[in-house]
Amino acid sequence: MAYKVGIVGAAGYAGVEAVRLVLQHPSFELAVITSNADEGQRLDSMYPAFAGQTDLAFSRHDDPAVKDCDLVFLAVPHTAALAQAPGLLEAGVTVVDLSADYRLDDPAVYEQWYGAPHTSPELLKTRAFGLPELFADDLAQAAEKHAAGQAVLVACAGCYPTATSLAAAPAVRAGLVAPDATIVVDAISGVTGAGKGCTARTHYCGADENLEAYNVARHRHTPEIAQILGRPGRVLFTPHLAPLKRGLLSTVYLPLSSDAARDLTVESLVDQYRAFYAGRPFVQVLPAGQLPKTSSVAGSNVAQVGLAIDRATGTLVAVGAIDNLCKGAAGQAVQCANIVLGLPETSGLPTAGLPV
Amino acid sequence: MAYKVGIVGAAGYAGVEAVRLVLQHPSFELAVITSNADEGQRLDSMYPAFAGQTDLAFSRHDDPAVKDCDLVFLAVPHTAALAQAPGLLEAGVTVVDLSADYRLDDPAVYEQWYGAPHTSPELLKTRAFGLPELFADDLAQAAEKHAAGQAVLVACAGCYPTATSLAAAPAVRAGLVAPDATIVVDAISGVTGAGKGCTARTHYCGADENLEAYNVARHRHTPEIAQILGRPGRVLFTPHLAPLKRGLLSTVYLPLSSDAARDLTVESLVDQYRAFYAGRPFVQVLPAGQLPKTSSVAGSNVAQVGLAIDRATGTLVAVGAIDNLCKGAAGQAVQCANIVLGLPETSGLPTAGLPV
Amino acid sequence: MAYKVGIVGAAGYAGVEAVRLVLQHPSFELAVITSNADEGQRLDSMYPAFAGQTDLAFSRHDDPAVKDCDLVFLAVPHTAALAQAPGLLEAGVTVVDLSADYRLDDPAVYEQWYGAPHTSPELLKTRAFGLPELFADDLAQAAEKHAAGQAVLVACAGCYPTATSLAAAPAVRAGLVAPDATIVVDAISGVTGAGKGCTARTHYCGADENLEAYNVARHRHTPEIAQILGRPGRVLFTPHLAPLKRGLLSTVYLPLSSDAARDLTVESLVDQYRAFYAGRPFVQVLPAGQLPKTSSVAGSNVAQVGLAIDRATGTLVAVGAIDNLCKGAAGQAVQCANIVLGLPETSGLPTAGLPV
Amino acid sequence: MAYKVGIVGAAGYAGVEAVRLVLQHPSFELAVITSNADEGQRLDSMYPAFAGQTDLAFSRHDDPAVKDCDLVFLAVPHTAALAQAPGLLEAGVTVVDLSADYRLDDPAVYEQWYGAPHTSPELLKTRAFGLPELFADDLAQAAEKHAAGQAVLVACAGCYPTATSLAAAPAVRAGLVAPDATIVVDAISGVTGAGKGCTARTHYCGADENLEAYNVARHRHTPEIAQILGRPGRVLFTPHLAPLKRGLLSTVYLPLSSDAARDLTVESLVDQYRAFYAGRPFVQVLPAGQLPKTSSVAGSNVAQVGLAIDRATGTLVAVGAIDNLCKGAAGQAVQCANIVLGLPETSGLPTAGLPV
Repeated sequence: MAYKVGIVGAAGYAGVEAVRLVLQHPSFELAVITSNADEGQRLDSMYPAFAGQTDLAFSRHDDPAVKDCDLVFLAVPHTAALAQAPGLLEAGVTVVDLSADYRLDDPAVYEQWYGAPHTSPELLKTRAFGLPELFADDLAQAAEKHAAGQAVLVACAGCYPTATSLAAAPAVRAGLVAPDATIVVDAISGVTGAGKGCTARTHYCGADENLEAYNVARHRHTPEIAQILGRPGRVLFTPHLAPLKRGLLSTVYLPLSSDAARDLTVESLVDQYRAFYAGRPFVQVLPAGQLPKTSSVAGSNVAQVGLAIDRATGTLVAVGAIDNLCKGAAGQAVQCANIVLGLPETSGLPTAGLPV
Repeated sequence: MAYKVGIVGAAGYAGVEAVRLVLQHPSFELAVITSNADEGQRLDSMYPAFAGQTDLAFSRHDDPAVKDCDLVFLAVPHTAALAQAPGLLEAGVTVVDLSADYRLDDPAVYEQWYGAPHTSPELLKTRAFGLPELFADDLAQAAEKHAAGQAVLVACAGCYPTATSLAAAPAVRAGLVAPDATIVVDAISGVTGAGKGCTARTHYCGADENLEAYNVARHRHTPEIAQILGRPGRVLFTPHLAPLKRGLLSTVYLPLSSDAARDLTVESLVDQYRAFYAGRPFVQVLPAGQLPKTSSVAGSNVAQVGLAIDRATGTLVAVGAIDNLCKGAAGQAVQCANIVLGLPETSGLPTAGLPV
Repeated sequence: MAYKVGIVGAAGYAGVEAVRLVLQHPSFELAVITSNADEGQRLDSMYPAFAGQTDLAFSRHDDPAVKDCDLVFLAVPHTAALAQAPGLLEAGVTVVDLSADYRLDDPAVYEQWYGAPHTSPELLKTRAFGLPELFADDLAQAAEKHAAGQAVLVACAGCYPTATSLAAAPAVRAGLVAPDATIVVDAISGVTGAGKGCTARTHYCGADENLEAYNVARHRHTPEIAQILGRPGRVLFTPHLAPLKRGLLSTVYLPLSSDAARDLTVESLVDQYRAFYAGRPFVQVLPAGQLPKTSSVAGSNVAQVGLAIDRATGTLVAVGAIDNLCKGAAGQAVQCANIVLGLPETSGLPTAGLPV
Repeated sequence: MAYKVGIVGAAGYAGVEAVRLVLQHPSFELAVITSNADEGQRLDSMYPAFAGQTDLAFSRHDDPAVKDCDLVFLAVPHTAALAQAPGLLEAGVTVVDLSADYRLDDPAVYEQWYGAPHTSPELLKTRAFGLPELFADDLAQAAEKHAAGQAVLVACAGCYPTATSLAAAPAVRAGLVAPDATIVVDAISGVTGAGKGCTARTHYCGADENLEAYNVARHRHTPEIAQILGRPGRVLFTPHLAPLKRGLLSTVYLPLSSDAARDLTVESLVDQYRAFYAGRPFVQVLPAGQLPKTSSVAGSNVAQVGLAIDRATGTLVAVGAIDNLCKGAAGQAVQCANIVLGLPETSGLPTAGLPV
């Protein structure tokens, strides 16, 4: 059975990545793609990689076909999802939101960081947080509701929070990390993470052969990471931009909590992490001594995690690598959709990157 | 039914691309991968993108498991295939060779350009030339022989010749190109085309932020292109290296043959090309006015072709874009294998690149 | 003695390259930089590489300080120079124009290719064509006029025409190239050549890991190359875009004119070229067998030329490498200014690129 | 007066950067360049950017001309400098060492981290530590000794320690950083930092489109950073590799030491830093709110520093950007040489990067 799927905001990078995945999904039929700014334009004229794949053209967000879908992926900027999700849910459409609008539990925190009031805070109580490996219950409940005929809302985790949390959460949840410690998160992303809009920063000649940090001490993913790890106010997050298209590497510094923790070996930590992620098809914990490279996972929905222990300072250094558009956005969205719809979790998702 | 497949020379770039494709092929079972220099090393330790995909490790080329295969892809340097193919064929193994060893019809030309005598010229008469869209009969005959129980040999076309010929052959075969004209072929390739070996040219700091031409007037693909197009001695081929990993663009200058030809419109030429390639799943002829980008096809087995006519000089400019490792090597090899084995031609092959 | 210099259109890439060169020029004092869109903004806030170098901020093009300059570099788009040059010349300011507005001898050709009428065709008769190595007389005459107190106009050659002509002109002028032959020019440029404006093509994610041809059979540099080489209607020019910032490589195919020409050795051609360019500080003809790499000249005003002969087709393949912003635009402009002002030709110009 | 200068290990990246700078230095005459592996090869054949600049060819390290120099730059791997420096000093040659061999005060620490015994520990007491902005006295004393006729030894700081320390030292030395806190240093470097040797990591196809951390918790620059900042055992350093040639960005996390410190504004910190670096020509502290980009300084000897304060965790985030080959190696070496020889500190050094 093929679910009728729509993608709102399909012209942006996360949106078109969703298009790519939905087009190759055995149980999805891509019914409508929307982009107000590009209404009428064929998808394959904007993205020639789709030549011969589909004749779809962009509609407007308010195209009635959207509400006819079984499931809609929202790939629009923050506040735009606030505007669209309630109406879609009301129309019985299950919504998988790639934006930040429904991620933060506390609407006051949302308002503080995103500069806009949260217009549907009641949905924050019922939505599933979309990071399957760390919030399996949320999605399990959403799947039950869906099976019972309800439209559900999933708020997919952001790209930096995904890589960061997959690398850090097992240690944090195992109580290995000092309770009041500052958790430094230093991450690097390729330029697709900055979005399709043209700026001095995203112009090829601004980004090429350059490294820079941005939004230091004020990036919106800070409260999201803190929420996922359960460490409000203790996360210090610095994103950086590097000259590549896809790829996100997050290096997380976790001060270990006690001498017992400090006597851990990397080998045993790797075992703990593997146990934590047992049965999860999209997280690979590398052997002790090996650290992940983003090129290993680019184009796929896999996250690779590597661990090291710095004895001198008693710190666990956990490194997570993902493709920011796939596992960091659209791939994770499809993965969540699969779970909610009761499909195999890996359906339609690439499980390996290109070797070179 | 799963065919037992081996890949000889699986550690190089073309070889590991073949590994990637075979691993995801519904009818292939990857039985053995060889690399003398890396004997014993796990594939996923050399190429972490394969983590969780396979436990295979490299054997030596003379591993008996190779001769137990139904089909073997040879991804070794020229002359190494000469050494291995005869023995494999004798053992009843169908061989798909990615090297140049069996491409050229005339062993004297091979010796002239590759600097080594051809040690099994008799195979040149019976091998199928592996460029399905242009030599369908070769592969159809090979498929018949295989169905009749024979081991067959396929010599896959080279990367530059593939992009070049797919762009040029329809016009040449239609008699549109002046008979004695010099055909200028100016192509650009990403660095995977230069191979895995480390040189000043392939070191990141040698290739990055650099453009250069190489092997001007002496590149070995010259006679191959000339043979495919049926224009011996009339092809002038200049390859260039550019800073990207995968991607190959060939711009072919075809002097048109008569006023009739010169009155052609691009639209009608596009129609002619589309008719020529009708039913071929891996060649897309872009609409008049559109030219191909390698990023549209990177990671896929698709070739995109674009056409333009320069009235002032009476020249057809045909541009072909491929992924040099996929359609330019391993993807084409799998495509040929599919045909020879009587499988759907697209089996296991990626039909679309990443949109971004 | 320091000349007061202004740069109109200093915010674009060619303009800011001119800023860089003028700031380090021993005889120039940068008095004013203009950009209507960025009026009031400090240069070093738009381009942090200038931190500590200057406190200049952008003025408007009509800032009276512009007409107070001894010499002004116009780095504005075509037609904008048409609007500004006459007024500046009238005010006694010597103008070095980096745009195309005064390059083409024939205003009808300008109108045909640039889609706008030429509003000061009389200036085309008196302007100096700015490619010093090939039009020394033009600049010598301009220098005389300037010494006599006249304001002069220099129209700097475009980037593709510069690399192409430096590679081809010696052979063409020596009568080695068949008179009616089509001259194929196949060139590749880095993305700075596409300008500062943001488009799908210049967005990092559009340009990275991609190769494409553009403006095939219709690029405006076609008539300019034909004019420089004296081959109207015989030039077929195809530009390509590659993923790097600075660098332009032009491969020129010159059918040789006679058996005499065909018996030339590359060594003797190299000697001829070196004789042609004797005493010219910015053109280096590489030894026989060596071809230029753009990374060798990036950041400098040097052009490197390499030669090869294809015996089979009787073609001289000449390759020219430049930095498209320096020798291809602003560096050439400063070089012309030096000559016109009677300064050492190399004054303030970088004579070597970075080795790595 | 021109000092006779030699460069030992001139074929590697740091060495050839030293060649570039020495060739353009008004007071240096490049007398000899050595590379055992490349004995006899012309410099400009290995590095065509030097065409027309010099006819020098590589000698062997034991070329007597080396000991005839006034000053020699050692750009050889660690332990190779140990082998050469004593003999050169004895011969009266002033030695500026780019390697790690004489950086660490404690020979036991050297042995622990570099895996080799220190063969001339007595020199550690007398050598000057080569980071002019932070160890001005060392170089002032060396200059006095040199003026008095002595040969002196300078040990230039490493690339990561340079960027890190310039960003962090002013705050640490002002007592703003909590005394026992772990100082996290998370840095990213372009591939020239990995050296000229070819490995899977430095092959274009290994480095392009990839991000990775390496040598986590065990990079040799850790003790050097700790020594410079005076925080033994408190530094946790993670280097990363990104796809660019030149450029190094270091993000340093400095937990602030008291409420007083936590009430600092970025503006006042910027003022403090500017006071600290007053008169230093090669360090630019960016205005509050601005963070450095490596492209601003690539090709130059400038370090740019930016500051931010994270109130939630009470951490100063200091970011330093340099060109790893220039200010991170050869530029710093020339800067030190200038000071030791009593020349203007900026002599021969590029003070600005390319704007684009």
